[in-house]
Amino acid sequence: MADTASTSLQSLLVEAKDASRALSVASAAARDAALQAMSRIVSDNVEPIVAANAEDLARGVSEGMSEGLQDRLRLTPDRIRALSQAIEDIRALADPVGDVVRGMTLPNGLQVSQVRVPFGVVGAIYEARPNVTIDIAALGIKSGNVVVLRGGSQAHATNTVLVSLLREALVQAGLPAAAVTSVDDFGRDGARAMMQGRGLIDVLIPRGSAALIETVVTESTVPVIETGSGVVHIFVDASADLAQAVDIIDNAKVQRPSVCNAVETVLVHEAAAQELLPMLGARLEKSGVVIHADERARETLPSAVLATEEDWAREYLSLELAITVVDSLDAALEHIRTYSTHHTEAILTADMTNAERFLNEVDSASVIVNASTRFTDGGEFGFGAEVGISTQKLHARGPMGLPELTSTKWIVRGQGQVRA
Amino acid sequence: MADTASTSLQSLLVEAKDASRALSVASAAARDAALQAMSRIVSDNVEPIVAANAEDLARGVSEGMSEGLQDRLRLTPDRIRALSQAIEDIRALADPVGDVVRGMTLPNGLQVSQVRVPFGVVGAIYEARPNVTIDIAALGIKSGNVVVLRGGSQAHATNTVLVSLLREALVQAGLPAAAVTSVDDFGRDGARAMMQGRGLIDVLIPRGSAALIETVVTESTVPVIETGSGVVHIFVDASADLAQAVDIIDNAKVQRPSVCNAVETVLVHEAAAQELLPMLGARLEKSGVVIHADERARETLPSAVLATEEDWAREYLSLELAITVVDSLDAALEHIRTYSTHHTEAILTADMTNAERFLNEVDSASVIVNASTRFTDGGEFGFGAEVGISTQKLHARGPMGLPELTSTKWIVRGQGQVRA
Repeated sequence: MADTASTSLQSLLVEAKDASRALSVASAAARDAALQAMSRIVSDNVEPIVAANAEDLARGVSEGMSEGLQDRLRLTPDRIRALSQAIEDIRALADPVGDVVRGMTLPNGLQVSQVRVPFGVVGAIYEARPNVTIDIAALGIKSGNVVVLRGGSQAHATNTVLVSLLREALVQAGLPAAAVTSVDDFGRDGARAMMQGRGLIDVLIPRGSAALIETVVTESTVPVIETGSGVVHIFVDASADLAQAVDIIDNAKVQRPSVCNAVETVLVHEAAAQELLPMLGARLEKSGVVIHADERARETLPSAVLATEEDWAREYLSLELAITVVDSLDAALEHIRTYSTHHTEAILTADMTNAERFLNEVDSASVIVNASTRFTDGGEFGFGAEVGISTQKLHARGPMGLPELTSTKWIVRGQGQVRA
Repeated sequence: MADTASTSLQSLLVEAKDASRALSVASAAARDAALQAMSRIVSDNVEPIVAANAEDLARGVSEGMSEGLQDRLRLTPDRIRALSQAIEDIRALADPVGDVVRGMTLPNGLQVSQVRVPFGVVGAIYEARPNVTIDIAALGIKSGNVVVLRGGSQAHATNTVLVSLLREALVQAGLPAAAVTSVDDFGRDGARAMMQGRGLIDVLIPRGSAALIETVVTESTVPVIETGSGVVHIFVDASADLAQAVDIIDNAKVQRPSVCNAVETVLVHEAAAQELLPMLGARLEKSGVVIHADERARETLPSAVLATEEDWAREYLSLELAITVVDSLDAALEHIRTYSTHHTEAILTADMTNAERFLNEVDSASVIVNASTRFTDGGEFGFGAEVGISTQKLHARGPMGLPELTSTKWIVRGQGQVRA
């Protein structure tokens, strides 16, 4: 019985790999037609999707699922129509496949070019977010990849309906159904087979909690792109424009606190603390932010909670913020080195030398001078769609767009050349 | 005792990580000065290097080391001077650090640029090739990286001397000695600490046998760049220029048979077999090549050894070659899909449609039309130096030069922008 299950799991992955051949040679027009069919089938099936989603939600509620998780899981008719539109938006993006990255003619006449090609099979492991099913499938097909999905047990009914609709759309458009493959019926064995699927899965993208990402990175023999969490810092230098600093920090914390590029710790140069902190405290209080401050910051922020060592490493993802006063830029850099998750850090300063030092010495995917940390975002950078924000250094770093879902291939055209 | 050893191993890796901060902000001039000192110290110390190497060789011989391995391990005065020159050559290459990959000004005035930055700490695990010690150290320093090396027990005495000289040169040039760090004193524990060194090692490059690479890929939680083996194919289409085909195949097999881009299997379209194979057989015989042919190829190559199933998957790395006759381009593509290691494949043809199909459908790092497979090479592509040839799809694919030893960072310069 277990053997039959693992055979059929393996055969699913082999089918997906085989389908990647068809996808890799499908024209952009054929892939776009499939995306159009996918968009249409999602908007045409709001009712069955809502019904399946209600099933997942009811099970979640009975198992005590938090309000936040329920919200991430919930698909309303409006949200479903937005997902259908998101597929259309992805279809409208420029096709990365076939782009020539660089090229040259060698002295012996060989014409060499490096061109973008699909990875082949992109795996995604995520949790309780059925929108990711649509998102990754659309990004995958647009970039000529097959996607293999493990969407988690909490969204199982919803994802089953979504995947079955997407596969129907693929077939309508003349592409193999296996171009969108789910291993959710196999529970954790499905995730394990993906993580160990060398030769079948070309790259694996975990999206979700730090624990999920840690598991995938540790257990995978397949290459992983880490899309990590953000303990994001803003350093207010002695020379900063303080009114501007208050606006930027408020925006970076409050505009959308639940996302990875929201600020979590503010470091204030001691020369700016006495003037800045009362203004900042008043603004953040108005925005409903709970401040965790160290002893020195509490001198001018007496109503703040006393910060503990744990606060410096916390990604609150909520209306909470840690504040510390530091002696110098060096002390700020040292704090950031210790606690940063290498996502985004910003300096607010009027001093060019300090700005340059911060840009050079902070080892993060995105380093910002005098602007909100919320700008580290594929949409803001003009990528049109975002696969995630990579906090690792290999292959992709920072916001990932469609080109980051491709590999390259060297094409060499000769006229009989041999090596001397 | 074991605890002390693992503490000091860990502290070596932490020192290397700390040194990466100094390297990442060192100017190109400072890094070049270190390379100059490294080159000089190697050429000034031919005698101690030869003496240490003689020790390794004597131990190898007493343990029954093969001639081939002895040759890879051996450092003669000429080879040492060539290594010193290789460091100079790497110094003369363009600095990849700080290159702007792309940039834009957003509608809100934010200036965004993606710039090349060093990885930080590059680990290398390799076997019995002391030249790799010099090579990786020089490429690493040139690209602003710290290198951590595990060079294997067979070259232990040689690598100890080389690393100690390189560290002396770094200090002379004002850079931290830890920028070249060896974990060889810790044996396999050293390799294990590197493979599990998340946060301390940024990328790991294994160089050596397929078994070594497999171990590193399987056991690492650190990102790995696979530099794999090459079961390289040439397909001779019905329309190929047959005299040219004989020249190309002979070159691809014979010019340097021990390397990964040498051809291992030739597939011949049945329409070309009868005319091509006698010519090809005669040429290869003259070059001393042993041919393993399938039944159909043996009809015109009666003196060839009968190929077994295993021959199709073998990387001979010697003057042996497998030959099969196929019915069609499709059959050739199917054979390549089954046995290729995704390194390099070539088609010899006069038919444009078939050339395009081969270029599109073969999923290898380098795909070649009408030229020798020996051109898949960083030197030939004009990179000046080669870190290795990646057969994976993430980060780098095909010949890797200095830019492939870097990551990128997004730099954002604002004037107070916040998100709406």
